[in-house]
Amino acid sequence: MDSCVVPLKHGGLSLVQTTDFFYPLVEDPYMMGRIACANVLSDLYAMGLTECDNMLMLLSVSQRMSEEEREKITPLMIQGFRDAAEEGGTTVTGGQTVVNPWIIIGGVATVVCQPNEFIMPDSAVVGDVLVLTKPLGTQVAVNAHQWLDNPEKWSRVNTVVSREEVELAYQEAMFNMATLNRTAASLMHTFNAHAATDITGYGILGHSQNLVKQQRNDVSFVIHNLPIIAKMAAISKATGQFGLLQGTSAETSGGLLICLPREQAVHFCSEIKSSKYGGGQQAWIVGIVEKGNRTARIIDKPRVIEVLPRGATASVLTSVLQNPAHEMKW
Amino acid sequence: MDSCVVPLKHGGLSLVQTTDFFYPLVEDPYMMGRIACANVLSDLYAMGLTECDNMLMLLSVSQRMSEEEREKITPLMIQGFRDAAEEGGTTVTGGQTVVNPWIIIGGVATVVCQPNEFIMPDSAVVGDVLVLTKPLGTQVAVNAHQWLDNPEKWSRVNTVVSREEVELAYQEAMFNMATLNRTAASLMHTFNAHAATDITGYGILGHSQNLVKQQRNDVSFVIHNLPIIAKMAAISKATGQFGLLQGTSAETSGGLLICLPREQAVHFCSEIKSSKYGGGQQAWIVGIVEKGNRTARIIDKPRVIEVLPRGATASVLTSVLQNPAHEMKW
Repeated sequence: MDSCVVPLKHGGLSLVQTTDFFYPLVEDPYMMGRIACANVLSDLYAMGLTECDNMLMLLSVSQRMSEEEREKITPLMIQGFRDAAEEGGTTVTGGQTVVNPWIIIGGVATVVCQPNEFIMPDSAVVGDVLVLTKPLGTQVAVNAHQWLDNPEKWSRVNTVVSREEVELAYQEAMFNMATLNRTAASLMHTFNAHAATDITGYGILGHSQNLVKQQRNDVSFVIHNLPIIAKMAAISKATGQFGLLQGTSAETSGGLLICLPREQAVHFCSEIKSSKYGGGQQAWIVGIVEKGNRTARIIDKPRVIEVLPRGATASVLTSVLQNPAHEMKW
Repeated sequence: MDSCVVPLKHGGLSLVQTTDFFYPLVEDPYMMGRIACANVLSDLYAMGLTECDNMLMLLSVSQRMSEEEREKITPLMIQGFRDAAEEGGTTVTGGQTVVNPWIIIGGVATVVCQPNEFIMPDSAVVGDVLVLTKPLGTQVAVNAHQWLDNPEKWSRVNTVVSREEVELAYQEAMFNMATLNRTAASLMHTFNAHAATDITGYGILGHSQNLVKQQRNDVSFVIHNLPIIAKMAAISKATGQFGLLQGTSAETSGGLLICLPREQAVHFCSEIKSSKYGGGQQAWIVGIVEKGNRTARIIDKPRVIEVLPRGATASVLTSVLQNPAHEMKW
């Protein structure tokens, strides 16, 4: 598990805590702050926790930036982080900043709760289905977007994708990464989720494998469908990099992969779409839980669901566009 | 305050949390791990908290090290960090590691407690005295030790200090930095401490100023005595750097500066020395609390107490020397 759960001496309470820090991957420092915060909180959301008692921010400012660059960029990253924390119902109360060759941003999310407030990710049963709450392909989109300025790399993919499609995919990836998995966490309780994980660095297959190993029942996960940001599957195929169709492409601040009772999964997917907070977020049934020895796999020819950019209807997009800070590029 | 205190919705409990991370400053990776952990815990100890419910470790491994160097050094840093955490009665349950140009080590310490378990650092009264639990001069000692290999820099101080004295001071600084302030935290309760801070990057004067500003009573702090690792005052004077006698020289994992009732302070100092866990740790009365407008100052000609190396009697030294890992240098 990415979160640790520590029993406390007081009143049967548990401390659930997670930390994450990494390097910028989008050009907009405000959005980068939001993404970092969403990524930290995601580990709590994967346990069905919807509240966070405290958030600390970890930041390193690059010594290679000029004074002016630092003064422009740092407050924007912090603001993005704070805004996402606020959207998550928590406050950044402290942290630590250092100077470093590379920019680093991350945080520590902490919640103290009753054991019934979180869902231990170990109770999948045969017949459950697997639901994914964000499309895959964030890493491919971020990389392809960098290639727009690199003729040699761009020439390897320009037969399968246009510049406009890459630009749209990048925007979609950015807004997905900045979207909190909080609504999904809340709906995990409503629809009796049995287990969940968030999809990050190990890709959907890696995290499925981690999750299935923790199950108490003799189950295996089989993934049939791969919802992928439009055109990113083609790029992954054309380059032979990433392993997006093999489920091994890294994601940042990806969706939750949730084991739900079959009869609840459809309701989950329609509810997340209509939720005020989900903001038109989509979810897909991507696989099933069958009897097995705790392995996870993707079927031979999975169905790729090309997920088209949502455009400006997403709530995160709307709230971000209302914030003038999002205009800053670096 | 370096720690944040967040009221929780459960049973009148508070969440107290602190994070710190920084760069290595001693050559021994095992000791560096211990120092990093002691430094993180120190913020809790400054509030009289002696227990820590959870510790996360933050680590960045340098991409400039060879595979072999990484494999040697990283486990030692982690072991040092873990051993110090264990000495603090807590366990490292998780964390995050990244690759970075520079090595970074730090952590996040968290405790959930009743309000009566910690001492808010705001209740100093006129007539209190200020007690310091570790000698000053760690930064000077660490720097002077580096100068041993730099003829030009060494020539600036070799008239006031010998190589042997620098070597001893460095060892003393290293063991002091690796010593937990836990005994001091515990004795804060025994002897009714009114407020405390730990001495780190802003030096004794800077942290005194921070502490005095938080006081509820109209008080000022006046510092008369400066306990300093032997010969470090001379180096600070000779180089004109550091500002050790002005109280502005940075410390790492420094001692606690504690406001104690006058009649209790002597008992505090003798108790910390005889404590099984304090391991011969010394403490000094360094100043007084008088009526004032929340300022802190060092008198014109403070008395410098030359603190001689303790040698192998210190418990931390003993426990470290029993651990073969301490032999590793990098």
